[in-house]
Amino acid sequence: MPQLRIALAQVDPTVGDLEGNAEHVLTQTRAATDRGAHLVAFPEMQLTGYPVEDLALRASFVDASRAALDALAVELAGQGLGEILVVVGYLDGSVGDAARLGRPKGSPQNAAALIHGGQVVARYAKHHLPNYGVFDEARYFVPGTHLQVVRLHGVDVAVAICEDLWQDGGPVALSREAGAGLLVVINGSPYERGKNEGRVSLARRRAGEAGCPLAYVNMVGGQDELVFDGGSLVVAPDGELLARSPQFEADLLVVDLDLAAASGGDVESADQGEDPSPLTINRTILSETPLTPYESVKPVIAPHLEDRAEVYGAIVTGLRDYVRKNGFRSVVLGLSGGIDSALTAAIAVDALGARNVYGVSLPSSYSSEHSKSDAAELAERTGLAYQVVPIAPMVDAFLASLELTGLAEENLQARVRGTTLMALSNQHGHLVLATGNKSELSVGYSTMYGDAVGGFAPLKDVPKTDVWELSRWRNRVALERGEAPPIPEASITKEPSAELRPGQLDTDSLPDYKLLDDVLDDYVEQDRGSAELVADGFAPELVERVLRMVDIAEYKRRQYPPGPKISVKGFGRDRRLPITNRWREVAPATASDPDPDAPASPHHPLPPQ
Amino acid sequence: MPQLRIALAQVDPTVGDLEGNAEHVLTQTRAATDRGAHLVAFPEMQLTGYPVEDLALRASFVDASRAALDALAVELAGQGLGEILVVVGYLDGSVGDAARLGRPKGSPQNAAALIHGGQVVARYAKHHLPNYGVFDEARYFVPGTHLQVVRLHGVDVAVAICEDLWQDGGPVALSREAGAGLLVVINGSPYERGKNEGRVSLARRRAGEAGCPLAYVNMVGGQDELVFDGGSLVVAPDGELLARSPQFEADLLVVDLDLAAASGGDVESADQGEDPSPLTINRTILSETPLTPYESVKPVIAPHLEDRAEVYGAIVTGLRDYVRKNGFRSVVLGLSGGIDSALTAAIAVDALGARNVYGVSLPSSYSSEHSKSDAAELAERTGLAYQVVPIAPMVDAFLASLELTGLAEENLQARVRGTTLMALSNQHGHLVLATGNKSELSVGYSTMYGDAVGGFAPLKDVPKTDVWELSRWRNRVALERGEAPPIPEASITKEPSAELRPGQLDTDSLPDYKLLDDVLDDYVEQDRGSAELVADGFAPELVERVLRMVDIAEYKRRQYPPGPKISVKGFGRDRRLPITNRWREVAPATASDPDPDAPASPHHPLPPQ
Repeated sequence: MPQLRIALAQVDPTVGDLEGNAEHVLTQTRAATDRGAHLVAFPEMQLTGYPVEDLALRASFVDASRAALDALAVELAGQGLGEILVVVGYLDGSVGDAARLGRPKGSPQNAAALIHGGQVVARYAKHHLPNYGVFDEARYFVPGTHLQVVRLHGVDVAVAICEDLWQDGGPVALSREAGAGLLVVINGSPYERGKNEGRVSLARRRAGEAGCPLAYVNMVGGQDELVFDGGSLVVAPDGELLARSPQFEADLLVVDLDLAAASGGDVESADQGEDPSPLTINRTILSETPLTPYESVKPVIAPHLEDRAEVYGAIVTGLRDYVRKNGFRSVVLGLSGGIDSALTAAIAVDALGARNVYGVSLPSSYSSEHSKSDAAELAERTGLAYQVVPIAPMVDAFLASLELTGLAEENLQARVRGTTLMALSNQHGHLVLATGNKSELSVGYSTMYGDAVGGFAPLKDVPKTDVWELSRWRNRVALERGEAPPIPEASITKEPSAELRPGQLDTDSLPDYKLLDDVLDDYVEQDRGSAELVADGFAPELVERVLRMVDIAEYKRRQYPPGPKISVKGFGRDRRLPITNRWREVAPATASDPDPDAPASPHHPLPPQ
Repeated sequence: MPQLRIALAQVDPTVGDLEGNAEHVLTQTRAATDRGAHLVAFPEMQLTGYPVEDLALRASFVDASRAALDALAVELAGQGLGEILVVVGYLDGSVGDAARLGRPKGSPQNAAALIHGGQVVARYAKHHLPNYGVFDEARYFVPGTHLQVVRLHGVDVAVAICEDLWQDGGPVALSREAGAGLLVVINGSPYERGKNEGRVSLARRRAGEAGCPLAYVNMVGGQDELVFDGGSLVVAPDGELLARSPQFEADLLVVDLDLAAASGGDVESADQGEDPSPLTINRTILSETPLTPYESVKPVIAPHLEDRAEVYGAIVTGLRDYVRKNGFRSVVLGLSGGIDSALTAAIAVDALGARNVYGVSLPSSYSSEHSKSDAAELAERTGLAYQVVPIAPMVDAFLASLELTGLAEENLQARVRGTTLMALSNQHGHLVLATGNKSELSVGYSTMYGDAVGGFAPLKDVPKTDVWELSRWRNRVALERGEAPPIPEASITKEPSAELRPGQLDTDSLPDYKLLDDVLDDYVEQDRGSAELVADGFAPELVERVLRMVDIAEYKRRQYPPGPKISVKGFGRDRRLPITNRWREVAPATASDPDPDAPASPHHPLPPQ
């Protein structure tokens, strides 16, 4: 059987940085060539970064992507890298296409270029366009209509892009009909908790359907709310895992494969089941003669991370890339002594280094002694820069001018803190981190323009019970490494409190977090209705109370800073709900709570604010 | 020819308020019956409100919509309204449908029910699903596969929904083949400046294609960022406009039509061109015998509003409904003496009445005398509740605790104002209005958590030059009505200034607004590239300066409160751009401005904050 050495370049592009992204391709193609590879594949839309969202509809951007691709092909050959076949994702389009209502302007395509000998020798456009969850590709792209097969050293190589793998039919099924000896799939497949495992089984199954080895290259790194976790891999048609890259790290995975020799190429199409727009096959022949047999290298199979390490790695990656790609070098956050800000600080230190993290304690007259000492201890343990700014003088100035009581006075304290952090951000150029968790955000237990201030929210998609779990896990890892645990034990064990009035506890306003997170998982993640929750054994009063809080907090969630998506249903663009929404799963049960829009929690402003 | 009297109920549903929306149907069906109508049509998704976004994917909500429809059918008959044919939009779905990746969960459909004699006698599901601009219907709905034709008093009535009208082929073309005597189109067609005219010509053309009169009923009222402007109408197949409802008002449009008699009904499908999923025809026969001839009523043809009145009406409608549907009764806003806050206040007074509008002057040590007197004069002219809260004590308290200079000090003042408005909101239950305009928002000339604070931003989609135009127009209307013009002349004529430092003017940081708005129209609305702008005659330095400001302000725009969509490209969900985006139309030209991410304007925090 003919051999090929393939390289999968698991890299981290930046959206819009055509020059930098092309530079990645040059660097990694050189590295692949140095390691003797005959083919190197880069992720989906590597050249533009991914996802580009509405930039796909801008003609000047499509033009720039196409020009950058042509320049890259020339530059590769110019640098002596013309012999290796390079598969690279880019944004294609037909700028001159007549406008048609409902068809994306300029007919953009999510495409893969095959570059060889200083030229783009073939192009493939993604056939299956995902339009669910975080994906809007029916808005942006026109589907491809051809399967692309390129003959390299006597092996027919077929190409597909991401969703093509997830949907039945289309390029994968047709690869078998086309007699492909290798299926290369380029991906921008975002992280979700537990998804990696599903991806591996999918790749195994699809390799079987294609009847040839499947090489899957994924992006790595953060892009706004998405985190790409890498985990590139190669599987045999019998399902055997041949090689795998680590998660959350750039990598160049090199694998030698024995592949079926190209057998002909007379099939031009095939039965593709229910697909309303079946593909035809395009063939390009680069070289018919198999390589002289050579000795294979032993491939790497990187282990999967365990669940906690994976989630922590996703948050660190998301934060690090958001800060860097937006041109910041440092972050500032408020340290309350509580667990959310402590874990956020530990993550920031892991992502950016202690000298780039500025923690500010912002005590009020309601802050307990242990809050102040726990914050100071965190600073000492992590080595971050630490400052104390008491807020009483500012709060008093407002209270002298305005008559504020209850909720309004509580929120005022949070807003004075937010204003202080933003002032430090503006003065010194740090990005502000919001420290709220997903449980709080679900029920609207936060203050807009107060603790919700910031450019990024690392724990936005992490429920409170997981905040504790991750904190314990991080401390345990430190001990295993012989380091001091970053998070003070007291921050983990004490009762959660917003400390906006004397003796306040979160449980004054919210159910116990364990119970709350269980209800939220059913209602938010699983989209189950109230009747199902009650049937599952939750008390009807609890269900009613929690669901009402969730239903009225949409505006606050929408205005919250972005954060790395961890769960299947985060609070970013994967979730789109109207602000004005009178639908209530449960009607108010008691006369004492007649107003479904009453503030649900103490430092809640009135919805939708 | 058989006659029919049809009624188009131009009503304003609330998303999620199934009970209230059904009540609208009962009330208007009774009114239509009282006026002798044989058919009454309600807007797209009247029963659930529109758009419901991700609520469509929630099984309990789909169930509730279907149950509400059945209950409505029974209730109509119970109230003696079983004889009239009721066409009403609702959310349908198959809760038991097996999950399939990429297919919306539960296979929801954007459907129309035809109710008669206490039963749903037929159902039609929208065939063409828009997935561009503000629409995401490929995410939410499964397309319908049948054209529905119902024979009523010897006339074959076909039904279509909104986008079905805009796309070639499908239900409209098939209506002719099916021998329809009347095509009823139910709509949730949002307002855009100038769109109404296009809608009328489209309806005329489609009536010709269908070969029968076309009855178009649209929603009215605001839903989050969308405003539905009504303008329901009936056109003859020769293009004659037979009747039209006013814009921005609820209406019941009653029209008598002479229609072709049903001729058979043996065509079950027809050639539908390129459509990948052609429709088949479902027929339902309610009554074969034409009505005894009767005397027709003279239909109403309401005039179009002129451009300024239309834009102003859209903003008033959007604000009024956002406040009411979210359970607020009053609003609070900062009054600077400038034109943006003055126009916002005038709009709020028109929408909610002067006694529900609270204006707060928040002078600093940099505020000019005329700012304070202009704000007071506005309050006097409009009759809104007025209060003065000097911010110096609060600003001084921050400055005593933090060392702040330049931009940080300027932003601080805006944030003290924002915190003050939010405190008043929390204390008294008013919704805060943000007063920024589209030009400022385009270039990021605003302070997050400062002047960007609020639950709604009426001028979000109105460029500065239009702010002046609308102000002059509103004053002129007052004079024509013999009322005092609401907006002080000085607010219209003076130089715009943020007054965050001595002698500051907007033109210190921005081009002249006329020029700026011209560039923004080309770049943001028309999506033209920098090369095209320069070719159009704009100075390269100007193009570079404005485009850079626009490119780096995405985060601020995204965090801004919602506001009524006026233009083709607003700053709401019709625009989706990455925050992390290194794409720059133009590279920095001068060595003195080496950092493309430097703050673009004086009270700008660093991007992306």
